[in-house]
Amino acid sequence: MPTPQQLIAARYGDASLPAPAAWSPVIEHLLGHRSVRAYLPDPVDDDQLAAIIAAAQSASSSSNLQAWSVIAVRDPARRAKLAELAAKQDQVAEAPLQLVWIADLARLERLTEMTQRPDGALDYLEAFLVGAIDAALAAQNAAAAAESLGLGVVFIGSMRDKPEEVADLLALPPKTVAVFGMCVGKPDPARPASIKPRLPQSVVLHHERYSLDAQEPGIETYNSAMMRFYEQQKMNVRGTWAVHSSKRVAGAETLSGRDRLVDFLRARGFALK
Amino acid sequence: MPTPQQLIAARYGDASLPAPAAWSPVIEHLLGHRSVRAYLPDPVDDDQLAAIIAAAQSASSSSNLQAWSVIAVRDPARRAKLAELAAKQDQVAEAPLQLVWIADLARLERLTEMTQRPDGALDYLEAFLVGAIDAALAAQNAAAAAESLGLGVVFIGSMRDKPEEVADLLALPPKTVAVFGMCVGKPDPARPASIKPRLPQSVVLHHERYSLDAQEPGIETYNSAMMRFYEQQKMNVRGTWAVHSSKRVAGAETLSGRDRLVDFLRARGFALK
Repeated sequence: MPTPQQLIAARYGDASLPAPAAWSPVIEHLLGHRSVRAYLPDPVDDDQLAAIIAAAQSASSSSNLQAWSVIAVRDPARRAKLAELAAKQDQVAEAPLQLVWIADLARLERLTEMTQRPDGALDYLEAFLVGAIDAALAAQNAAAAAESLGLGVVFIGSMRDKPEEVADLLALPPKTVAVFGMCVGKPDPARPASIKPRLPQSVVLHHERYSLDAQEPGIETYNSAMMRFYEQQKMNVRGTWAVHSSKRVAGAETLSGRDRLVDFLRARGFALK
Repeated sequence: MPTPQQLIAARYGDASLPAPAAWSPVIEHLLGHRSVRAYLPDPVDDDQLAAIIAAAQSASSSSNLQAWSVIAVRDPARRAKLAELAAKQDQVAEAPLQLVWIADLARLERLTEMTQRPDGALDYLEAFLVGAIDAALAAQNAAAAAESLGLGVVFIGSMRDKPEEVADLLALPPKTVAVFGMCVGKPDPARPASIKPRLPQSVVLHHERYSLDAQEPGIETYNSAMMRFYEQQKMNVRGTWAVHSSKRVAGAETLSGRDRLVDFLRARGFALK
């Protein structure tokens, strides 16, 4: 087991950082997260899944509307098809369980039908946002819970690349959308994952008021930390984190199809007013 | 300490449910979450805050873009002002620390300026969604971490009710938006909070394909569980959860100002294409 100081050093790519003065076993667990992209075929059983979902449901939910669902995909053929749709990422086919997280306004619409009440608020961007945030809060708890059972996870944002095909494969009704996937399974010890460094706290944490200028020294520090990380991991990454990130947001062509998200959502019954 | 069976019973409002067969201390911790709305004035110190933020940063981030920030507000006058803006919720003024979670595309825009590259992808709904999801994943880890230090939390969605005023108060630049707040502080033992029951797993968890019809029996079960909960808590709630939830989504007038979210975001530099 790494020490608290080692976990902090890995999390920020900076061996000179001291051990944190406040600590708990839960914080130790959360700091140990790393995205796992290589899995053994061992199944995730129903008991494990039930515990993971109970943890997901224990996350907060806006006004307790619980505007999310999750689809557990274990069928190898469906996983393979999802992998193809999600930027051909091998780990989606390889992991024994794919959890597809859904922003779900369809259940709320059904509630209004059952109670014979109007549902006009579902036509606003706010409603979509509530569903997406509810799904994300639940998913993060699921990730922590799965990892506590010795499983690994990785989020799959490319589940939004081809949303029509994903919706068809999962029989998604109007007013539901897959916001991301999540591979779950036993990590392959032969292909271990590493903790990825994050930005210094001085960049993401602001006191009382936001400041953009105050972030620049920390961004430079982080560019250096990530260069060391790429070298340690023998990753062939060109340029700094700043360059790498800039390339991701260059234009519609770098969005892997997600530039069509508004059109897709509108066609699926999210009016986004 | 409640047993695993007691935690599951409270989480689903159903004392007949068996203890889960898969379990861990982390899952036990996550299942124990309850939203805290009554706080002692004791401050959250810098060491606690640093550990909470390290946990937040350990959550996954889309393409490691880390498109979020958080503003720690401790100043009593600013907390009082935020409380006023957030539906006059007393706990926002009462809790010694308010964490305001920001979907942050401004840092990415700055990176593209530093690297002299185009940033057209920031103009898409996808980019806003990445920021909101990144912020939510980070915030959920922060919540779990804070609770593990003996603190309580509650998410404040009404930080979106008056977004212009919140942005002014926190000096938010273009391409940043407060997606929600979070009260953090020591729970007042004189005003304890309870675990709120959630929908049966049969409602939120789907296997292989989504089904709306399969959810109806579970929704009826949950309406009954919530009626029992309202009675136990001596809460004066009229109607079932289905009625209560339907009322929340009736129309623009039930969105507490959040029907203007698109206009606000466009004015703040999120093109949402």
